[in-house]
Amino acid sequence: MLKKLLLFGLAGAAVFTVGILIGHFGIEQKNSTPLPEWVQQVAQDVDENFIEDFIAQVDSMQIKDNLEILTRVPHMATTAGDEATVEFMLKRWRDKDTGLDAAWREDYTVYLSFPDKTKPNNVTVVRGSDVLYHIREKEKTYFPEQDDPEVVQPYAAFGPAGNAEGKLVYANQGKVSDYELLNKTLGGLTGTIAIVRYGGAGRVDKGINAAPFGVVGVLVYTDPHDINDGKMSDVNETYPHSWYLPPSGVERGSFKTNFGDQLTPYLAAKKDTYRIEEKDITGVSPIPMQPIGFEDAQMLICELAGSEAPESWQGSFPCKYNFGGPGFKNTSRFNDCDVKLDVYNKAGLKDSANVMGVIWGSVEPDRYVIYGNHRDSWVHGAIDPSSGTAVMLEITRILGQKVKTGKWRPRRTLIFGSWGAEEFGLIGSAEYAEEYISKLSQRTVAYINVDIAVFANATLRASASPVAQDVIFTASKQVKIPGPESISVYNNWMKHSNRTSPTYGVIPNMGYLTGAGSDYAAFMHYLGISSMDIAYTYDRSKTSARIYPAYHTAYDTFDYVNRFIDPGFTSHQTVARTAGNVLLRLADSILLPFKCSDYAETLEQYLNVSVQNFEAELKNNGIFMDSLKEAVKSFQAAAQSLEKIISSSDVLNNSPLKARRINDQLMLLDRAFLNPLAFPDKYAFRHVIWASRSSSVATFPGVADAVAKAMKSGLKQDWAQAHKHLSIVTQAISGAAHTLSEAHSAL
Amino acid sequence: MLKKLLLFGLAGAAVFTVGILIGHFGIEQKNSTPLPEWVQQVAQDVDENFIEDFIAQVDSMQIKDNLEILTRVPHMATTAGDEATVEFMLKRWRDKDTGLDAAWREDYTVYLSFPDKTKPNNVTVVRGSDVLYHIREKEKTYFPEQDDPEVVQPYAAFGPAGNAEGKLVYANQGKVSDYELLNKTLGGLTGTIAIVRYGGAGRVDKGINAAPFGVVGVLVYTDPHDINDGKMSDVNETYPHSWYLPPSGVERGSFKTNFGDQLTPYLAAKKDTYRIEEKDITGVSPIPMQPIGFEDAQMLICELAGSEAPESWQGSFPCKYNFGGPGFKNTSRFNDCDVKLDVYNKAGLKDSANVMGVIWGSVEPDRYVIYGNHRDSWVHGAIDPSSGTAVMLEITRILGQKVKTGKWRPRRTLIFGSWGAEEFGLIGSAEYAEEYISKLSQRTVAYINVDIAVFANATLRASASPVAQDVIFTASKQVKIPGPESISVYNNWMKHSNRTSPTYGVIPNMGYLTGAGSDYAAFMHYLGISSMDIAYTYDRSKTSARIYPAYHTAYDTFDYVNRFIDPGFTSHQTVARTAGNVLLRLADSILLPFKCSDYAETLEQYLNVSVQNFEAELKNNGIFMDSLKEAVKSFQAAAQSLEKIISSSDVLNNSPLKARRINDQLMLLDRAFLNPLAFPDKYAFRHVIWASRSSSVATFPGVADAVAKAMKSGLKQDWAQAHKHLSIVTQAISGAAHTLSEAHSAL
Repeated sequence: MLKKLLLFGLAGAAVFTVGILIGHFGIEQKNSTPLPEWVQQVAQDVDENFIEDFIAQVDSMQIKDNLEILTRVPHMATTAGDEATVEFMLKRWRDKDTGLDAAWREDYTVYLSFPDKTKPNNVTVVRGSDVLYHIREKEKTYFPEQDDPEVVQPYAAFGPAGNAEGKLVYANQGKVSDYELLNKTLGGLTGTIAIVRYGGAGRVDKGINAAPFGVVGVLVYTDPHDINDGKMSDVNETYPHSWYLPPSGVERGSFKTNFGDQLTPYLAAKKDTYRIEEKDITGVSPIPMQPIGFEDAQMLICELAGSEAPESWQGSFPCKYNFGGPGFKNTSRFNDCDVKLDVYNKAGLKDSANVMGVIWGSVEPDRYVIYGNHRDSWVHGAIDPSSGTAVMLEITRILGQKVKTGKWRPRRTLIFGSWGAEEFGLIGSAEYAEEYISKLSQRTVAYINVDIAVFANATLRASASPVAQDVIFTASKQVKIPGPESISVYNNWMKHSNRTSPTYGVIPNMGYLTGAGSDYAAFMHYLGISSMDIAYTYDRSKTSARIYPAYHTAYDTFDYVNRFIDPGFTSHQTVARTAGNVLLRLADSILLPFKCSDYAETLEQYLNVSVQNFEAELKNNGIFMDSLKEAVKSFQAAAQSLEKIISSSDVLNNSPLKARRINDQLMLLDRAFLNPLAFPDKYAFRHVIWASRSSSVATFPGVADAVAKAMKSGLKQDWAQAHKHLSIVTQAISGAAHTLSEAHSAL
Repeated sequence: MLKKLLLFGLAGAAVFTVGILIGHFGIEQKNSTPLPEWVQQVAQDVDENFIEDFIAQVDSMQIKDNLEILTRVPHMATTAGDEATVEFMLKRWRDKDTGLDAAWREDYTVYLSFPDKTKPNNVTVVRGSDVLYHIREKEKTYFPEQDDPEVVQPYAAFGPAGNAEGKLVYANQGKVSDYELLNKTLGGLTGTIAIVRYGGAGRVDKGINAAPFGVVGVLVYTDPHDINDGKMSDVNETYPHSWYLPPSGVERGSFKTNFGDQLTPYLAAKKDTYRIEEKDITGVSPIPMQPIGFEDAQMLICELAGSEAPESWQGSFPCKYNFGGPGFKNTSRFNDCDVKLDVYNKAGLKDSANVMGVIWGSVEPDRYVIYGNHRDSWVHGAIDPSSGTAVMLEITRILGQKVKTGKWRPRRTLIFGSWGAEEFGLIGSAEYAEEYISKLSQRTVAYINVDIAVFANATLRASASPVAQDVIFTASKQVKIPGPESISVYNNWMKHSNRTSPTYGVIPNMGYLTGAGSDYAAFMHYLGISSMDIAYTYDRSKTSARIYPAYHTAYDTFDYVNRFIDPGFTSHQTVARTAGNVLLRLADSILLPFKCSDYAETLEQYLNVSVQNFEAELKNNGIFMDSLKEAVKSFQAAAQSLEKIISSSDVLNNSPLKARRINDQLMLLDRAFLNPLAFPDKYAFRHVIWASRSSSVATFPGVADAVAKAMKSGLKQDWAQAHKHLSIVTQAISGAAHTLSEAHSAL
């Protein structure tokens, strides 16, 4: 009996133990578990398998199809073609199988400038009332695309209407120094018309710089030297025989300094928003301007009288570039002729749409990763911007399908923006940033911009806030370049462009977003949101083209892309894979894949450049850099200590508030560099590290420009301004360091 | 056997079940539980018992002791007395039994103005070189305190040094309209000295307004009508017989417009920070000023010639207040005399300290509740500011003890600030805000200011951002007023001051923080941090005193408080209980006790006032208020929807990220109203709802002031500015509404 009891006792103990085990582990598997579901949900980290699957699904042929549809007609902002792309984006983002959670349009009433269809702009060579030569009004037709009545005549958007006539002079790139030299050489430029080539100075600056010298009108053209590697003949050299620009091709563009709608500074351009008067708009040319093709430019420049321009002013035309008499040679058929500009541009209010789409986050819906590109083009815009839009649509197709089939939902919210009127000065994205400034500032983790996805098919190119370098590197290591070589995007990039980092040794050379070249501007500079601009680009050993040759012309078409830029669309595919990979890591990682020590490295580099270039001169003027050095040091220390916390953090087994705390520090790091009063003359530039800079010294922009001015003038008040900018950047850096330092340390 | 087996089977089943139960529930109780500790920790809500215990522990005698120590010597900013209070605060906050987690000092090098001890300011009545009368240099001594050599001579801080002589005129309160009337009446004020009384206009404005009329110096005094309910005699009426100001008492003060250090706008005043030149300081008087006692003022005013000033200009002196001839009556012994000001104020850089203390948060250390008060006084400063400091020290004593004994740690971090140089224009708090702008903006939940804790012993008075109304009400309902009546602070407050709310009916009348009266300014206006200012104040049926009579004089002493303001220190105790209660609720509640619908009610009220006062005139000028109305409506809707989410949220059984999301919306609500470019002429005022306002119409300040200007001038450009401010506030309100709307809704 004892034995039996023992046996039963043992059996009972075993049963008891099994009971405990079932109670402890078995029930956990079911819904009635003591471990709440959200505990597991918040511990779900980025899924590498999901990313691999995403990469595998990116389909070059889908991108090609997207591009073909997007580029059927010209779609300049607010035209019927633009409206068709709005509808197309909405249709795709609302698709029941591959669409997003929601998509909608948001309209702004913005100030745009167009040529007058009934009275085209006109450039002529005249002798009294005789017209000897007409500059061509439209680009030459090689395919039906160029014949589309919706191809806008080349013009200088926001250049004033007006009639200007005068003797022609050649002013190189239209920089201040160019006009100074020309003015000195000719003993005055009053009443002249200047012809200048693209490059070296911003479009509008070529006019703004000219006016004070008395120049009355400006022609702008693209020299074959700067864009075509010297190639000029459309018989066998230029498009449609190659990617080079045909002789009649004209780069259109926005001729204004500030981004965003000009009439509603710092306010979203709603119907009844306060608008400044047109006469109060700043940053536009006071004199008429008109862009022309190099065929016509050659006809003018090669006839110019006067002495020979310097070597650096010479281009690819088979003649010597002279300054101009002013005017033409005696021996020319244009002898004694004026050049006449008749510009009829008209500006007015138009409704421009952003198309927005969203996939809501599961765990942190109030954290946004924004991915965007503009939708409007100058003509068909196959590269600019439709290559980027085609890529974005492929990314949203794959992710939309995952969401619709219940296979995935991002941890954070994804917002996709198809911006309007970028070509007129980043207007759609800027108005969006102005309207939602608070919400976006509070919640946005990052902005990814893929505008022109593929300039050329050689290598990845990325510019970004330094915190994002690491995630871009991670993504680019995981994606292979097109073709038979099994080499990563990262390694290929490093081959094409690299630098030596004090921390990492040789790495790909990521750029910084110091200008306002695309829609990242409002995010990076105005809102202080860590931004990225990603594209595929040139092999610089093969071309010196300033930009892809068909840029902003009637030749930027599907055919051009399909035959010359990216046959097979594998570079597009590579960009989609890389940018999508970055997007997913930002969306799904528990800890944001941002690295503040990379920011520290950049600040140290900027500091070193400042010290080398400015410290002695500043000291001579009683201004010392010690506080700036200390600020950079404190930033480095704070970044290191935060990264120590990150690497020692067991985020999976901790309160999600701990990860959130670190993520807030990382998310808000770029915000800490904002100072809305630092640059009163630079519209919406608030980031004291990345604001635009005139000085060629690559360092803190406020300091660089102020010191340059003070060194030139020697004035006490200019040195005071240098001191002011030194204090501004010092406070910004030490303020940013405070945000990185552990909560548990002295404020 | 079968039966046995069945029995054993049943027993086994029972044992098995018990096993399951132990496995399921039993193990949860222990440390090896599957429910991580942090899950319980994050679900710990505010503890009402703890608050009751806190209330019980607030000890009036401790507060009295604190005050006695704090007021032993004069402690004007940067003097030896100030340094002694720095040491005292540090000692208390570092006490091993009752101190905080950490305490430290932070010094700024700031621009302060003092009289010259070796050459006191001097006001005389002169006839040629004969001096007929000397205004007294120091206040009369009733107790040894007034004889302390560290009692600073009355002076107008930041008023310029200079010698001014001229005929005396009486200019009422020194408002622009006062000088206009006087100027018209006398046919010119060039070369005169004006005497004006405190009230009606800011201190410095009395000088700034005077100068354009040719006035060369200004005397300021406190009329017994405005401060003493007419009482004048120190034989039996004024202190030391009552709380009323003795005849020789002089209100000192800061005579400047902008808050913060004047030489380092928007930059923390470190040693080598960029400083503007002294000549570029704005917002100071161009002419010498000097404050005097009413005994001397009576001597001058009652001798003035000229016609009788209007009824509203008359005060309590037993004579008619005339305008002045200019100058004195023929019949006066001062006939033909000038009044002469010799002001020797000197300004320069001094090091001023903030003392900071902290209790680190357990669950959300990166969320800060800041509680502060300034430490510096003009003389002994028993009420201003030491009553507030005595209260703060009692709060930190109780909470410090709880932390040191391991009984409590707040969910969020508590920061205590003892600000320096407030009396010189809120300098310590402003420099702190400038230095830590990013960290504070990102993390601060609220700022609680208790400067003068007890003006008088009648009732609570609170001014705050509307989101904080609810938590102040909750706290004040829980605390009883002093004395035998068992009535809540809330009900007593409602008895003294109330309003009818559309939502709640009759409630206490909480004020708004529309000015820069104390250290909340940098938090509320510059950083957009929801702020509160809490005190005990007058029974308005018993006194019309502009402020407590000893304000900024040598009579604001411990004796004055102990005998007249708060014998027994029970009003101090009540303020400590109420403000401490607010602090604890903000620190410990899982969901922040902020109510955005109360903000909506305020915005609606402001909108209604704007519509009533401005809509017709705006319409006449082609400006419409529809968008503003829509913005307010969208804010109301968003606030309601957020409160629905809050009330339906089961925060205890949800991811803490859900509460954090809502808390971020509430914490950042005031931030959404910031616009750093809205008021370019108002230093550091960025909050478009609460910025200072000149117009008497209590509504959106930018709109109110711009419309007032436009209505006066009728100029088109002034109406354009009104439109601009309408757009600015519209965008701010709709932007704030966006931040409140659910994450899962269109942006």
